[in-house]
Amino acid sequence: MGNELLLGNTVNTNASWIAAQVTSLGGQVCRITAVADNLEEISKAIREAIRRKPNFIITTGGIGPTFDDMTLKAVARALRVRLKLDKIAVTMIREHYARRFPKRRISLTRPRLKMASIPSGSMPITNPVGTAPAVRISVHGTEIFCLPGVPREAKAIFRDSLSKAISAKAGRKKFLEKWITVQGLMESRLAPIIDNVMRKFPGVYIKSHPRGGEGRGRPFIELHFSISSSGPGMKIERQLLGALRRLIVAVSNVGARVS
Amino acid sequence: MGNELLLGNTVNTNASWIAAQVTSLGGQVCRITAVADNLEEISKAIREAIRRKPNFIITTGGIGPTFDDMTLKAVARALRVRLKLDKIAVTMIREHYARRFPKRRISLTRPRLKMASIPSGSMPITNPVGTAPAVRISVHGTEIFCLPGVPREAKAIFRDSLSKAISAKAGRKKFLEKWITVQGLMESRLAPIIDNVMRKFPGVYIKSHPRGGEGRGRPFIELHFSISSSGPGMKIERQLLGALRRLIVAVSNVGARVS
Repeated sequence: MGNELLLGNTVNTNASWIAAQVTSLGGQVCRITAVADNLEEISKAIREAIRRKPNFIITTGGIGPTFDDMTLKAVARALRVRLKLDKIAVTMIREHYARRFPKRRISLTRPRLKMASIPSGSMPITNPVGTAPAVRISVHGTEIFCLPGVPREAKAIFRDSLSKAISAKAGRKKFLEKWITVQGLMESRLAPIIDNVMRKFPGVYIKSHPRGGEGRGRPFIELHFSISSSGPGMKIERQLLGALRRLIVAVSNVGARVS
Repeated sequence: MGNELLLGNTVNTNASWIAAQVTSLGGQVCRITAVADNLEEISKAIREAIRRKPNFIITTGGIGPTFDDMTLKAVARALRVRLKLDKIAVTMIREHYARRFPKRRISLTRPRLKMASIPSGSMPITNPVGTAPAVRISVHGTEIFCLPGVPREAKAIFRDSLSKAISAKAGRKKFLEKWITVQGLMESRLAPIIDNVMRKFPGVYIKSHPRGGEGRGRPFIELHFSISSSGPGMKIERQLLGALRRLIVAVSNVGARVS
């Protein structure tokens, strides 16, 4: 979420970090969306996401004290509920300031209480490294988690409170991956070889990433092998390694180098 | 676009680069979306984007020779048109190979011709640094541009072929920005000051980015001032500097340091 992403000032590293975590927990990320700090835009994006019926929607950013922190209001609007001042959230914020400034009395001004105004029916989640609590709310089988935009805070809350929920949903699903590099072969030459290996090893996904491009110099392609399955670990690994080996043999036969 | 973004393997730097370019040309990016390499997912995302009636939709990735390069097929599906083998695109690809391998005869295999199969009614755009031509197609007042995913290729085509179209649409709109750093003040304390300055300088947008967080150590906040307007350049700059000055005075009055 946020204008800084749409202005191109900030690269969405929160999204990549969360996506990598979800993947390694056996989950599958279906979409990443960045929208402006605008009430209508955010709530539209939330409504669209709900309609796709995912198990989880994770938002980052927009839950702080400033005027343009409006994610919670937008979630409330998307769910047609009101914001309410949550007592537990107020306590979390008060305790945060008390810990941080043991000798000062920090009064709960409006911008500070704003961080405790959360959608009716939602639950605040402790932020172990910042002020604004995160928020969790369910709707039609989808769990929505609203995390802070500050990466350190988003990560801490994800680790504390989301990872368990996600791996519980993913069940025994495992994700394995391998990278290799192919030199001396154009991507257009590699394409039918990949097709062939993927047909022989269904379940293994091979994605090619041309680096340096077909445009100049020697072609140099990174290949990403992955498999996501709830089968026994040994069998999954055998599948992945089988596909890997078959591809290496095929590209070596046409004179390419693999590393 | 692309699984690598959803797996968290790749950070979406193409999106940030394009967003920064569009912003500096006076345009406004309303949304950034990443979806899986899946025909239905991509065409759904394209249809949703068309419904929002933007001036431009820019896609990156999925126009190469491999089986999972399916952006053009997805665009065709979203627009309910067919893919057709485009003669100009074939020539572009043939000439690219001839330039790159002057001594070899590169035959136009199926994966290579795939890059010349573009939606009916679209136009291929020369890729000066790679093989796959980019594609341009109009629908209901929206111009769709499909760029390659390789950053070097996407950038070259953007500079050659998109920047003019975007700045023509943006008209005389200009975008100015400034960053400052505020130390010794919590974001919750800064919030009402920002509100106040923004009320005095409508048009100027001030966004606060807590770095290091409110959680530990000294608060340290980056403030981003921006204005996007078609007014005379001098006046816009005066607005931005006026807002900057007023904020600096206000935070200095409560004992914060600005740099």
